[in-house]
Amino acid sequence: MKERHVGMRTFQFPTKPIISGAAAVVGVKEGKGPQAQWFDKILQEDYYNEKTFEKAESKMLKNSISMAIENACLKKNIIDAMLTGDLLNQLMSSSYMARDVGIPYLGIYGACSTMTESLLLASVLVDGGYCKHTVAGASSHFATAERQFRMPLEHGNQRPPQAQWTATAAGAVTVSSPDEYLSNHNSNTIPLTNTLRVTHGTVGRVIDPGITDSNFMGGAMAPAAFDTIRVHLTDLGRTSSDYDLILTGDLGIAGKKILQDLAMKKSHNDSLPNSVFKGFKKVYDDCGAIMYFSEQDTHSGGSGCGCSASIFCGRIVKEMRAGKYKRVMLVSTGALMSTISKQQGETIPGIAHAVTVEVS
Amino acid sequence: MKERHVGMRTFQFPTKPIISGAAAVVGVKEGKGPQAQWFDKILQEDYYNEKTFEKAESKMLKNSISMAIENACLKKNIIDAMLTGDLLNQLMSSSYMARDVGIPYLGIYGACSTMTESLLLASVLVDGGYCKHTVAGASSHFATAERQFRMPLEHGNQRPPQAQWTATAAGAVTVSSPDEYLSNHNSNTIPLTNTLRVTHGTVGRVIDPGITDSNFMGGAMAPAAFDTIRVHLTDLGRTSSDYDLILTGDLGIAGKKILQDLAMKKSHNDSLPNSVFKGFKKVYDDCGAIMYFSEQDTHSGGSGCGCSASIFCGRIVKEMRAGKYKRVMLVSTGALMSTISKQQGETIPGIAHAVTVEVS
Repeated sequence: MKERHVGMRTFQFPTKPIISGAAAVVGVKEGKGPQAQWFDKILQEDYYNEKTFEKAESKMLKNSISMAIENACLKKNIIDAMLTGDLLNQLMSSSYMARDVGIPYLGIYGACSTMTESLLLASVLVDGGYCKHTVAGASSHFATAERQFRMPLEHGNQRPPQAQWTATAAGAVTVSSPDEYLSNHNSNTIPLTNTLRVTHGTVGRVIDPGITDSNFMGGAMAPAAFDTIRVHLTDLGRTSSDYDLILTGDLGIAGKKILQDLAMKKSHNDSLPNSVFKGFKKVYDDCGAIMYFSEQDTHSGGSGCGCSASIFCGRIVKEMRAGKYKRVMLVSTGALMSTISKQQGETIPGIAHAVTVEVS
Repeated sequence: MKERHVGMRTFQFPTKPIISGAAAVVGVKEGKGPQAQWFDKILQEDYYNEKTFEKAESKMLKNSISMAIENACLKKNIIDAMLTGDLLNQLMSSSYMARDVGIPYLGIYGACSTMTESLLLASVLVDGGYCKHTVAGASSHFATAERQFRMPLEHGNQRPPQAQWTATAAGAVTVSSPDEYLSNHNSNTIPLTNTLRVTHGTVGRVIDPGITDSNFMGGAMAPAAFDTIRVHLTDLGRTSSDYDLILTGDLGIAGKKILQDLAMKKSHNDSLPNSVFKGFKKVYDDCGAIMYFSEQDTHSGGSGCGCSASIFCGRIVKEMRAGKYKRVMLVSTGALMSTISKQQGETIPGIAHAVTVEVS
């Protein structure tokens, strides 16, 4: 049997679970941004025919899950477990979605790192043989996050240049056991070339650079992203150049620069074996930095669980299926803050989990 | 290789991960209750030398984790992953604990079902070979929960008879790979008789009986507990009588009666194979119902993630080590509500996850 734990703290998935389906649902603003063509559904208005923004967010998550299951040509009743989370207090969007969907449910919270946390654990459940099919997903909504974490929308307050815009977006993937999926697979509906497979995952440590400005989440999360990418590469004996794309969750424009600086410094540091960050800049990008056009006035870019969820489940999965990338590392990043911790003068701890996905 | 998925939706752990260490830390009121003798630390005052109740809760969780690691005779730096959660918005207690402890961290949210959710996933990570040692834990604090979910403490509002009292409590266990643990085990410190092993787990579905009264959580959670216990027993081809103890998380006195009624009805229902609830009443109890003396004025008993966490990690682990029980099913139960969902007229969905622990 192949090892399932490699290096310091990376999980290896010898069965290489298949990302059998994927879907992304986004809001109006995201549907006018540069990623619009990749999303499976763009809302006409951000209430999504619901009475509140919270219910709209829950519906977006629910629909992205249904569409991912459909995309995989699976039926809801054969999914063994569903792992999702969001930014709302007590995971309101996920909880009510889970009630409506009825699949056995594990609530996950990693702030905006939730997409990789859920994808990593969903892959563990499938690779370990506990589940045949799982769903992993995450959501966020500008209006629900803004009024919960910052200001009432009606207040119309000014936002500083380092601020990010919580994406109104949800994304989900189904993760399936290769044996199960391939034996039931109808190659008339989905071709078997360029199948996405999850090969490795690294659980992040919480790292706190001491930032207290809740508008500067990119800075709060960049050191955690750096740590996780470094460990993931080192554990696998790889460098950045072994990847076609390394994609962080939502460091935004400001945080992306910080991570690039950290990587550049460390790539010249002899104490790191093989300069794991060699060629980093060439393959690196950030979902937050590419979610909006600069004229969309989001300042430092996108954020929120749904940011990396919708770009990964919407765009990257399609691009990998089309053969554009062979190996991608997704590193969703989370700022573990709450309004209460901020009021108590606490700093903002960051976390990031990494998952490697390959086509074969 | 043995199957890891049995029946409809139960996970089987063929390697039988070991609960190598455990500890519980509780508040002043819990330390005056009937379970006092079992807790590893009882606070002198509920601020725990911190400036806020939230920081006190985080410190309780941190200390229960440190004490569990010590109880297992392990060192912090060899723990591969830590899975914890709490009731505070954005898991504040867990997030700040994880920053201070530094072990790779996966945030888990299942309301008061968090202890079994984290224990189940920690066992998956160990049994699947992804981790050698993991930590699972959960916490709650009366003062932090009350002011977040209900009324300011200073308000001194009346509580209805069906209300439960959020326990000021934290509990944690270390879950270890048997190979790893037994090869490094010093039998001078911990005898190898009556080793606790996690054998099975079932992920719960969200079930919503339509209750809107946030003081009646026991009623909101009882149907989910019933569903999970039924599935766990059916999947394993067992009945209640095969267990020495089936312990729900925090249905409280009112919810416990509802679950007993549901079980009695179904045990006479011929459509259920083997009457899985045969003998249920004899082996069944609820952590919320036994946490306080009736004169402690908690009405329907205890609740909160820390309720089942502290009773399992404090009392049940010690009793199993002492040979009192051979096989226990822990079924922590969660009410997936938030203040926002309540304000929007939503009902309270319930969830429950089950884990079977045996001594060998």
